[in-house]
Amino acid sequence: MTDQSPTFIPVAGVRLGSAAAGIRYRDRKDLVIVELAADSACAAIFTRNRFCAAPVLVARDHLGRSQPRYLLINSGNANAGTGDDGVRSALACCRALAALRSCAADQVLPFSTGVIGETLPVERLAAALPDALSALNQNGWLDAARAIMTTDTVPKLCSRRMEYCGEHFTVTGMAKGSGMIRPDMATMLAYIATDLAVDPVLLQQCLERAAAPSFNAITVDGDTSTNDACVLVATAQSGCAPVNSAASELFQQLCEAVEAVCMELALAIVKDGEGATKLVQITVEEALTGAEAREVAYTIAHSPLVKTALFASDPNWGRILAAIGRADVPGLEIGKVELWLGEVCIVSGGGRAAGYTEAAGQAVMDAEEILIRVVLGRGDVSATVYTCDLSHEYVRINAEYRS
Amino acid sequence: MTDQSPTFIPVAGVRLGSAAAGIRYRDRKDLVIVELAADSACAAIFTRNRFCAAPVLVARDHLGRSQPRYLLINSGNANAGTGDDGVRSALACCRALAALRSCAADQVLPFSTGVIGETLPVERLAAALPDALSALNQNGWLDAARAIMTTDTVPKLCSRRMEYCGEHFTVTGMAKGSGMIRPDMATMLAYIATDLAVDPVLLQQCLERAAAPSFNAITVDGDTSTNDACVLVATAQSGCAPVNSAASELFQQLCEAVEAVCMELALAIVKDGEGATKLVQITVEEALTGAEAREVAYTIAHSPLVKTALFASDPNWGRILAAIGRADVPGLEIGKVELWLGEVCIVSGGGRAAGYTEAAGQAVMDAEEILIRVVLGRGDVSATVYTCDLSHEYVRINAEYRS
Repeated sequence: MTDQSPTFIPVAGVRLGSAAAGIRYRDRKDLVIVELAADSACAAIFTRNRFCAAPVLVARDHLGRSQPRYLLINSGNANAGTGDDGVRSALACCRALAALRSCAADQVLPFSTGVIGETLPVERLAAALPDALSALNQNGWLDAARAIMTTDTVPKLCSRRMEYCGEHFTVTGMAKGSGMIRPDMATMLAYIATDLAVDPVLLQQCLERAAAPSFNAITVDGDTSTNDACVLVATAQSGCAPVNSAASELFQQLCEAVEAVCMELALAIVKDGEGATKLVQITVEEALTGAEAREVAYTIAHSPLVKTALFASDPNWGRILAAIGRADVPGLEIGKVELWLGEVCIVSGGGRAAGYTEAAGQAVMDAEEILIRVVLGRGDVSATVYTCDLSHEYVRINAEYRS
Repeated sequence: MTDQSPTFIPVAGVRLGSAAAGIRYRDRKDLVIVELAADSACAAIFTRNRFCAAPVLVARDHLGRSQPRYLLINSGNANAGTGDDGVRSALACCRALAALRSCAADQVLPFSTGVIGETLPVERLAAALPDALSALNQNGWLDAARAIMTTDTVPKLCSRRMEYCGEHFTVTGMAKGSGMIRPDMATMLAYIATDLAVDPVLLQQCLERAAAPSFNAITVDGDTSTNDACVLVATAQSGCAPVNSAASELFQQLCEAVEAVCMELALAIVKDGEGATKLVQITVEEALTGAEAREVAYTIAHSPLVKTALFASDPNWGRILAAIGRADVPGLEIGKVELWLGEVCIVSGGGRAAGYTEAAGQAVMDAEEILIRVVLGRGDVSATVYTCDLSHEYVRINAEYRS
């Protein structure tokens, strides 16, 4: 998809510096330091994969013990599947940066993305820290968004500027990721910052609420990385009052802005999915529970047969129907199910809808953005997930990467 | 893979006749009648997909009401997603055959495989019944195995001949299927027959026991068809004593022979999987339960990243590790997990095994048949599933079929 440099608004209290450490890639930056103002609050969500990478273990531990001053991010090496040595490497990087900035090592949160199972080149990484530090700048977001890319084809970065009681606040975020997982060369990382002052408990709530419909509702290949992490920082540098109550209007505004940023970044990840040619929204309505709505949506989203039909722009609704039918929804009555492609009703009453024509389905499938809507007729809960198609290019990228 | 006509042994009491009804394909047979001797017992397993096809509904109903004399199978049209009209069509085909043979309509079990959502051409099918009947022959297995093919590239057929107390009995089966599902153009169908006399309850037990490690342990793309069916017939024509006890040695022999036939057919389906270039066995050992062993095995088997690495013959064990880590196994301790490729230990203690070399992993991955073995270190239960790789050809077949 098109490569345009995204625009952003700097966030007071956040400076970013990038450098080339030569971890794996040549002739590009692969190391990012994010410096946070003193008194910044920091919330985070990490991968649920049990084989989580060393930096995830260390970042989670540090976050529980200290108030972070630095995020240290590298691409090119995931430091995953590296056992205790990997943890020592991640800690060594934190200590190296802490020594240069006279802070405690546990005030540094490490993040890595890249090849699994290879030793992190700690010395090369440490040697590039001074370069990254000297580049620290409020305007460093775009360089950073580029430096954390692996198989991504475009940097992902966006902002929202909000007004509240005559004051302004900003939410800016960057992300990388090009499959839900490329344990080899990808992972989803996202960093979002606001200049508001936010109570840490509320900040975590805000992040979890924003991640649910965005980062946790996208899938390229159904996998979950060993290194996924999403961080939300509040620097307390804006003129707005502190956010101390979940009932406050300002907290609601913050949540809306953070969710909007997360959603834009999440959709950018799906659009940049490996080999993706289509952005597909799958909405399941009238489910009994959110869990069963998501079960149906993900069963469709993960079906290779549905995904190849999407690639072919083929309104092959039998494949969608079969995916619904095999989803784990006890007691589903197929006679109540409706299937819509965009505004076109394809299936109702357990069979092809009266009046459906292949031409009408084809018109929907020819678009670059496709909506699949399933009505279960069981309750009143909905869920939406986003995915992309499965193309020749997906196989090429994933089969040929290491060769 | 190579196209050699498989050999088979006829089963006394079973005659098969094939004909060209022109349902969808030109210049090939697409209709099969299987005639069973009077007093044959018949066991069956059907798809668990809730959108099951009209012939599945009818066959299940007939089987509960009557002793089948005929199986009526067509390729080219699945008669699925066709609602009540589809049920009427399936019944009309049964009645047409019953009228020609002076049996009851519910003594005919219908089966269909092919395109979803199109009306079954009942008249064309009925018009070809006399041709198929006049072809009825004990040696009709190979013609029948060819006539039920859709995207299959080879007919799938095999036999076992067993001796018991000086008498012989035979088990012969045929199958089709080239993805676990091609709701569009595939489905798994399997028909197995023995000339033993077997109590119907034991026959059903035998079939379920044989299907578990074979047809229910293979996956090409993780989907389950709307039309899957597997039938086991016992014609009571051999000289052996009737099988009336689950404790009898003859029942054990029968089960072994049926399982061997099912396993050979199941592996033939995986090898003929759409675009497959590798046959991959995934064995998970030392699980607490069979369910958790299968969860881990299927999570690996369905990972597009693992499957594309297999296609590329890339010993990309990080992808396998990540799949194990995201499988739904509460309390999995990654430090106890071992990962083996063939005889090569790749991961132990949560990281790369001491002494592992990429060259050793590469040698295993270069083969056409690959064993992935995972040791969970939690209990003593094992499970094995079989799958194939994900190739360019898979995308081509599934993206281009209808275009």
